[in-house]
Amino acid sequence: MNYIARNTDMRLRQLICQIKVDHFSFSVLNTFKLRYLINDTWQKTNNAPIFFYTGNEGNIETFAQNTGFMWDIAPEFKALLVFAEHRYYGESMPYNNKSYADLNHLGYLTSQQALADYVDLIQYLKSKSKYKNSPIIVFGGSYGGMLSAWIRIKYPHIVQGAIASSAPILQFTGITECESFLRIVTSDFKKAHSNCPKLIRKSWNIIVNMTSTNEGKKWLSDNWKLCQPLKNENDIEQLISYLQDIYTNLAMVNYPYKANFLAPLPAYPINAVCKHLTNESLTGIELLIAIKNAINIFTNYTSETKCLNLNNSTPQLDAIGWSFQACTEMVMPICSDGINDMFKPHTWNLDEYSKDCIKQYSVKPQPNLICEKYGCKDLSTATNIVFSNGLMDPWSSGGVLRNLSSSAIAIIIPESAHHLDLRSSNPNDPFSVVLARKYHRFFITKWINEYHEIRK
Amino acid sequence: MNYIARNTDMRLRQLICQIKVDHFSFSVLNTFKLRYLINDTWQKTNNAPIFFYTGNEGNIETFAQNTGFMWDIAPEFKALLVFAEHRYYGESMPYNNKSYADLNHLGYLTSQQALADYVDLIQYLKSKSKYKNSPIIVFGGSYGGMLSAWIRIKYPHIVQGAIASSAPILQFTGITECESFLRIVTSDFKKAHSNCPKLIRKSWNIIVNMTSTNEGKKWLSDNWKLCQPLKNENDIEQLISYLQDIYTNLAMVNYPYKANFLAPLPAYPINAVCKHLTNESLTGIELLIAIKNAINIFTNYTSETKCLNLNNSTPQLDAIGWSFQACTEMVMPICSDGINDMFKPHTWNLDEYSKDCIKQYSVKPQPNLICEKYGCKDLSTATNIVFSNGLMDPWSSGGVLRNLSSSAIAIIIPESAHHLDLRSSNPNDPFSVVLARKYHRFFITKWINEYHEIRK
Repeated sequence: MNYIARNTDMRLRQLICQIKVDHFSFSVLNTFKLRYLINDTWQKTNNAPIFFYTGNEGNIETFAQNTGFMWDIAPEFKALLVFAEHRYYGESMPYNNKSYADLNHLGYLTSQQALADYVDLIQYLKSKSKYKNSPIIVFGGSYGGMLSAWIRIKYPHIVQGAIASSAPILQFTGITECESFLRIVTSDFKKAHSNCPKLIRKSWNIIVNMTSTNEGKKWLSDNWKLCQPLKNENDIEQLISYLQDIYTNLAMVNYPYKANFLAPLPAYPINAVCKHLTNESLTGIELLIAIKNAINIFTNYTSETKCLNLNNSTPQLDAIGWSFQACTEMVMPICSDGINDMFKPHTWNLDEYSKDCIKQYSVKPQPNLICEKYGCKDLSTATNIVFSNGLMDPWSSGGVLRNLSSSAIAIIIPESAHHLDLRSSNPNDPFSVVLARKYHRFFITKWINEYHEIRK
Repeated sequence: MNYIARNTDMRLRQLICQIKVDHFSFSVLNTFKLRYLINDTWQKTNNAPIFFYTGNEGNIETFAQNTGFMWDIAPEFKALLVFAEHRYYGESMPYNNKSYADLNHLGYLTSQQALADYVDLIQYLKSKSKYKNSPIIVFGGSYGGMLSAWIRIKYPHIVQGAIASSAPILQFTGITECESFLRIVTSDFKKAHSNCPKLIRKSWNIIVNMTSTNEGKKWLSDNWKLCQPLKNENDIEQLISYLQDIYTNLAMVNYPYKANFLAPLPAYPINAVCKHLTNESLTGIELLIAIKNAINIFTNYTSETKCLNLNNSTPQLDAIGWSFQACTEMVMPICSDGINDMFKPHTWNLDEYSKDCIKQYSVKPQPNLICEKYGCKDLSTATNIVFSNGLMDPWSSGGVLRNLSSSAIAIIIPESAHHLDLRSSNPNDPFSVVLARKYHRFFITKWINEYHEIRK
């Protein structure tokens, strides 16, 4: 048994549950070990509520450590805390070290299989007499929030309510315009300093020009401390997409205090980034040096990074698994025009995208699958879900920003980045986040009371 | 193109749709031809309602021919009629003639895969511009009714409402007592003549005694014209279970007029059967002859049956596929005590049942799977479903007999057998069935109006 110390009374026991690799046929009969973390410090009586985090793309510890809201409210609800790891991430590998070997093994990495894992785990927990009549409240942020919303939509008899924070369940083809996402990122940078996005916009051509010669490639590789020196066109494209990812990540984790979610960062990291990008006249090598210093905030805040690895802007999450999901179900169109946003213009091209996916995984992206399976346009039958979205969060572009029904509610948090409301309470929290958490508590109380009411 | 003539203006075009064998992984990429029947006689304008029959265990023609209600109301709704065949039945074989070869091929015969087939087919139909904004109303009887209810529960964004007739979605472990089913059968026979169930109850011991000797086995085999003469204990058990099936089937199709659903039968066939079983003093060979004459109504009403095949009491349906489903998901406990019912006492024994399934298909029945996946106890979030149940129908034991919510409604039809309300209107219909169909029309109208209202 392995303990993850948060502090003395916040320990997580690590457990495993044997789960079917394929929940939807009787042809594939293998099982695997799904990992979950549990804390029963506050659960004192029988039928205590179970607060269940529907894990997303990464080690489950990351989410247990960055979902302080569940820890903060567990004592008042006397709840059991459970954090379930998503299959194919962390240690929950359906086929051990062969899980990513080929499509035969990797093909069971789907959201519907993951939901069925969580249903099985919940049923297993509820098979114990002390949890027999425990209401289940699910929590999730980002993709984890999508899973929280979907598990309530698909299994309302298993899950009583869902707090789906920053869950872009509408960021799909034909539903949300691909331009929205990067415009929000741009607006966050503009708020920090009006010249900041202008300089970033200007930088793309300078990078392209600079790296058009071998000397320029060498200069940039050396000066920016790239792990692999730039060699060809592909490397330049990769550098540009790496930068875009970093700006996007900064917008997501632009929290009001020092934190370590996608990377260790200072409070309001975009402000720190944009401090380097205030002088509108910066250009050429000077601008490239300023950009390098700016992104340094994200890539090397702790001064421990030896070099920049362009393959992965978020080493704390598992990029390989997600890129497979993005190549199958999670096709979320994002594009830029370079006018209304600060990015290098880039159209959304499904054919090109598909070619890459076929090359990398032998799969063809299914851009309509999510809306077909879970619904996008008509979600009026959804109940007992809080969709919370921070307007500073680029993912709010695909979030549910209007109530779907009388109990599937949208909460807008103007001053919040990506699922800030799921983090621990902090003195620097903006008031809108404090208020959102009050709503969460209100609805959780309501769902738990309704659950017990029916059983009386 | 193949036409199935019902009458001159009721033709069905037979079409196929290429569908994934496995909707829930990216490892199994095969597709197969799902058959569906279509009639567009009354669909005149764009965005006409689509009345979609969610096919159950058998050739789809059987259901198209026995769901006259859809035909009856299509003109007033100007609806397109679609009857979709269930995978692994009729001609919709995922792996052609290997579909039943082994578990690798047969394991994709599950209700969830079937629902996903129907979703794909509906999406395909709606991809045509004339059906782009067509509301989808699903219809189904018995297992097809379960599928209708479940497709609305799981895919409310695809299906606007469901008429789920005689759908025993509660006939599962821990929800419905196993005794209920055969007590309803018994009560139907009692209504025909009070001595009828008494004589049937008495017959079991007489059959057992008679067939305890070789002469007796020979007498019964010859006199009852069995296709295979009785040889051993197993054959006797099979005979008894065959009789139980026939009595049950009679209760299901005890329609008020001559019909041909599970077999060609006269009006109120139980009355015809019980005419042979009125004399309480009948016993021994006399009783066996009376029983033989009684079941003759079911087995040989047309005088065309050469011999009784104990392997299959309903040759019109596909018993092999269903028995696999009953060995995996559709574990519906049924038992008898011989006191409150007319059957040979038989406890429900999951271990024994499982052994048979493992032997026959190498699968272990999952008695909790259906309630875990679809819900049984808490269905309060269900919307836009009419659950209709005839109280003469043994399957009403597992039916939804109370409203689940303000729009998931239970309709009780006291005088109806198994999904009589889905059959064509008939002068002999009892008033309660006529009334039920009025409710159906009322709700269908409401769902269609609501669908268009949202889109205004």
